[in-house]
Amino acid sequence: MDNMIKLAIVGYGNIGKAVEEAVKNSDDMALSGIFHHNDNMNDINADVVALCTPTREVQFFAEKFAKRGICTVDSFDIHNQIFDLRSTLIPLNKESCSVSIIAAGWDPGSDSVVRTLLLALAPKGITYTNFGPGRSMGHTVAAKNIDGVKNALSMTIPLGTGIHRRMVYVELEDNADFSCVEKNILSDDYFAHDETHVIKVPSIEELNNVAHGVNLIRAGVSGKTHNQRFEFNMEIDNPALTGQVLVSCARAAVRLRDEKRFGSYTMIEIPPIYMLPGDEEQIIRTLV
Amino acid sequence: MDNMIKLAIVGYGNIGKAVEEAVKNSDDMALSGIFHHNDNMNDINADVVALCTPTREVQFFAEKFAKRGICTVDSFDIHNQIFDLRSTLIPLNKESCSVSIIAAGWDPGSDSVVRTLLLALAPKGITYTNFGPGRSMGHTVAAKNIDGVKNALSMTIPLGTGIHRRMVYVELEDNADFSCVEKNILSDDYFAHDETHVIKVPSIEELNNVAHGVNLIRAGVSGKTHNQRFEFNMEIDNPALTGQVLVSCARAAVRLRDEKRFGSYTMIEIPPIYMLPGDEEQIIRTLV
Repeated sequence: MDNMIKLAIVGYGNIGKAVEEAVKNSDDMALSGIFHHNDNMNDINADVVALCTPTREVQFFAEKFAKRGICTVDSFDIHNQIFDLRSTLIPLNKESCSVSIIAAGWDPGSDSVVRTLLLALAPKGITYTNFGPGRSMGHTVAAKNIDGVKNALSMTIPLGTGIHRRMVYVELEDNADFSCVEKNILSDDYFAHDETHVIKVPSIEELNNVAHGVNLIRAGVSGKTHNQRFEFNMEIDNPALTGQVLVSCARAAVRLRDEKRFGSYTMIEIPPIYMLPGDEEQIIRTLV
Repeated sequence: MDNMIKLAIVGYGNIGKAVEEAVKNSDDMALSGIFHHNDNMNDINADVVALCTPTREVQFFAEKFAKRGICTVDSFDIHNQIFDLRSTLIPLNKESCSVSIIAAGWDPGSDSVVRTLLLALAPKGITYTNFGPGRSMGHTVAAKNIDGVKNALSMTIPLGTGIHRRMVYVELEDNADFSCVEKNILSDDYFAHDETHVIKVPSIEELNNVAHGVNLIRAGVSGKTHNQRFEFNMEIDNPALTGQVLVSCARAAVRLRDEKRFGSYTMIEIPPIYMLPGDEEQIIRTLV
């Protein structure tokens, strides 16, 4: 028990619950507390905190724990702000002797590792990341914000070469006019650039499904040799995978801390073996 | 030019030539010499040597350069001896302040990274690595050693769940008896455990093709959630990919040396970003 990694959860929605399950299935970890994001966290006693809050609250908590010398993992997913979050956290982590692993979900996250690996295998070429079928949180929120929409679900459908169709299911407010709602969705900046279909349904709740998928393709050149072809596919339960990635990266964060390599890291900056429990020799003999 | 990584090649067969092409396509590297495996190597002036010899000669050269403080990369491919090679090299690397990256091809190598990542994403479950269609070097050599065989080619055909068919093409010596050759191949330990077909052809040279492939599948459990499905596929020119992986790992070896993290590493132990050239900020902003 003394050798166990003590992990606390902050934020207890879908992802927080998935982290709880993944920790309970990890022989090298103990759950040291679950905190709602507005709880008092002064008495958190953990090696590492999994930040399972909405993404816009991640930086606040990551800074707070980094200042206290507690490691964190998060699945911050605003791609163009990841480098800046890392830059903000690095000096705090170094000052307090802690490690933050950021953007540790599946995209950004494990897909980023695959994209990096494929670029190393074929440095010239094009990578396409095709998402879905699965729910897009950002597009769902945008659709919910349209006047007359009571509830909505925007599904991302991959059409290949990184092009996506949006299937937007809407449950209307009483007296709302569907053709007006449809027109406002189609002209919203979130939807105006993609093929979008708006479909009226009696109940969004009936469509609820947290499945998601990725089809990541690279055709490229190794040395001077063209036509090198690579493909990574997955069909997964979205929160379960995100929770598991957070837990695997929590293990890596504690290892980096123990090696005194304090700082903030994205997943492409950490050795993949650090995410696995168990004996190094056994892992190398089995996987390599 | 002063900032360039100086790479030398030892062994100048298919892989050595592929490494040469990959270095020439790397803006951050300069080729500092090509040595046949029986050349005098006393005057090698390099940051890192790519060992492109037959796999059984790798340890000899890896030890020699590790003792001289020169980094190496190799694509040593005898899976059950990789950990021992690493254990042998680590003290030599630490003593001489160098880094060896071993088993850096595609399997072992990049496939090992994918297997490790998938285990982190879904810790329980089964991974199947299906090879081919493509030539198996070991089985080809075994077939060539059969009496009456002038030349041979053993193709590995994936049947799924890690089961493979062997398609063995043979060019016979004059007066050799095909049915006798066929029987001896089918009873050879290399072939006796797999579905094997032996086919007589007039010329093996006419069949020559260095294409290969992988289909790597994992179905597993993230946290408590089953039915998480992952797949990695590639269809590639074998020596071109191996050469490129060696060059990408040579870059990582020099970076680890510059960070004074001396020792011997398999690919699952190195941060994927270390394999890429260029600015870290730009890579993180683009890939993560």
